[in-house]
Amino acid sequence: MKLEQIKTPALMVDLDAMEANLRDMANFFAGRRCKLRPHFKNHKAPILAWRQMRAGAIGITCATVREAEILVEHGIDSILIANEISGAEKPEVLAQLARHASVMVAVDNCHSVRDLAAAQRNRKSQIEVLVDVNIGLNRCGVEPGQAALDLARYATEHGLAVRGIMGYEGHLQAVPPSPERDEVVRRGTKAIVDSAALLETEGISASIRSTGGTGTYAVAGDYAGITEIQAGSYLLMDNIYVSRRAPFQRSLTVLATVISTRGRERAILDCGVKAVSGERGLPILKDVPGAHLTALNAEHAIVELDADSRALTPGQKVEVWVHYSDATVNLHSNMYGVRHGELEEIFPVAH
Amino acid sequence: MKLEQIKTPALMVDLDAMEANLRDMANFFAGRRCKLRPHFKNHKAPILAWRQMRAGAIGITCATVREAEILVEHGIDSILIANEISGAEKPEVLAQLARHASVMVAVDNCHSVRDLAAAQRNRKSQIEVLVDVNIGLNRCGVEPGQAALDLARYATEHGLAVRGIMGYEGHLQAVPPSPERDEVVRRGTKAIVDSAALLETEGISASIRSTGGTGTYAVAGDYAGITEIQAGSYLLMDNIYVSRRAPFQRSLTVLATVISTRGRERAILDCGVKAVSGERGLPILKDVPGAHLTALNAEHAIVELDADSRALTPGQKVEVWVHYSDATVNLHSNMYGVRHGELEEIFPVAH
Repeated sequence: MKLEQIKTPALMVDLDAMEANLRDMANFFAGRRCKLRPHFKNHKAPILAWRQMRAGAIGITCATVREAEILVEHGIDSILIANEISGAEKPEVLAQLARHASVMVAVDNCHSVRDLAAAQRNRKSQIEVLVDVNIGLNRCGVEPGQAALDLARYATEHGLAVRGIMGYEGHLQAVPPSPERDEVVRRGTKAIVDSAALLETEGISASIRSTGGTGTYAVAGDYAGITEIQAGSYLLMDNIYVSRRAPFQRSLTVLATVISTRGRERAILDCGVKAVSGERGLPILKDVPGAHLTALNAEHAIVELDADSRALTPGQKVEVWVHYSDATVNLHSNMYGVRHGELEEIFPVAH
Repeated sequence: MKLEQIKTPALMVDLDAMEANLRDMANFFAGRRCKLRPHFKNHKAPILAWRQMRAGAIGITCATVREAEILVEHGIDSILIANEISGAEKPEVLAQLARHASVMVAVDNCHSVRDLAAAQRNRKSQIEVLVDVNIGLNRCGVEPGQAALDLARYATEHGLAVRGIMGYEGHLQAVPPSPERDEVVRRGTKAIVDSAALLETEGISASIRSTGGTGTYAVAGDYAGITEIQAGSYLLMDNIYVSRRAPFQRSLTVLATVISTRGRERAILDCGVKAVSGERGLPILKDVPGAHLTALNAEHAIVELDADSRALTPGQKVEVWVHYSDATVNLHSNMYGVRHGELEEIFPVAH
């Protein structure tokens, strides 16, 4: 297949940029005690998970039981589901996976602990858990310290294998680096490390202390006692992380075709919210100065052109920089890897 | 499969509500000269397209060549792509489809006409087109009247079969019915009908005059000379069309599981923007008074609970009313049809 044959809208990855990101992150962790367990939810591409493993990752982080299933199917055998699961169905699937791979899961409440314990009894397997502590995001997680210890004890009593502590500072990914922000990051990592120490004092194993994202990996990865980092967006990057000054290159665009124009002022592209997410912000046109993407409909992007912008013509292909990669990759079945204008490889996205 | 076995997040259709919508819309068109060609982009489910056909639809409208391919694969043989296409690849696919079914496509520019003409020459088929006129949305479409006639002539000269005129008043779908709004709708329909008359005066066939959506079908469908209506959202409905006072019932929810709680004040659900669109607005909890969905992350929904709301517990399942059905259905592979709390059938969503 040639680049010209790709039907728009299509998700494109600049291979030079992506490989530079892969290398730069690997270099950061080379020789460090803290290791990278990159998040799968961002790219959802098993091929890319394997490239991260070969670049030194100790395993893969993911968000859902379905993602863990995909990873196990693709031969990854050390997985962290950095998220709570609950109910009857998903713990059963997890307990089955646990017979074939090490799959840790976050816990932050007694209901989930009981659901997981019931599932592992049914499946005769051993589920491993990290106690999730709230380090300021106020989404999931128990309070660090005593509440984390109480839940770890409860999990142990129910036969789950406690492996350590995790906490995700999602609210701090949005803040560009500064001495003040970095100090707040360190307060969160300290709460994780201290909670793990408390568990170990009480005889509960807590050798894994996991945290960090693409905005905070450097600070969290330098903090003594943190053993692994969950960053994932670094590989493909997006406009959000560029605005947060993450030190990686954008690689992800959506290729679109101009399908209609209104004079020189306006062009309509065939990429709407079914092909590129408008959540959190709009994409930006690549290499068309003076052209502004001003709205996304279901199947259309509206582009307004300044008077001195070059004209766009129906049939012409343009690219837009993805604003929010998690939500955009999720809309596609393939990513097209391009180098110097040539299609080099295709990365299937698993759902 | 039983309702309890469905893994969350999952897309649910209340069959009683959907069937009432199907029946009510069919009743509107029964005995009318104007007919319904419902839009596929909303539900993307071939089974539902066939139910619409059996309820009296004269064919199916869709937004993309891919959707037309899916429809042809599922035996629908009268299709309108109510959207412009351009470039080399998609006109080739369309020209191939045109060998097996009647597939009309909107045109609004000479570039697209030439692309379509080249493709039908290559594939030795006959492409049918509607000239798309701008009736106020200012997205695609040429101006009604002379510009429409000029483009129809250009298309005819290039060997395309002109079938008529279409125009979509997307901007008026957002305005609840009122005598003033209805008058604006009629001005748009008049421009379509007048443009078609102009083509016919000049010897170009224009027997098809297509317009209308779920917010305007009644006014447009009553206008003399309009032959078909493109409304699609009526079948499943969503919070957007409820706020616009469209006379149909919401049938579409996302089933989610509570995975974490913070006291009685806050609950976290496992449905984020990968399962329910946050474009244009947030979903609303069904049957949990005092509970407010306040944010969507990639894999999480944040729910704030009033003091007098009943508590939510990890493991519990809840439903949220979909705000924007087009963008939400697109995130799923199946819709689960439920009646009186029992799973009755599964509608595959085609991509």
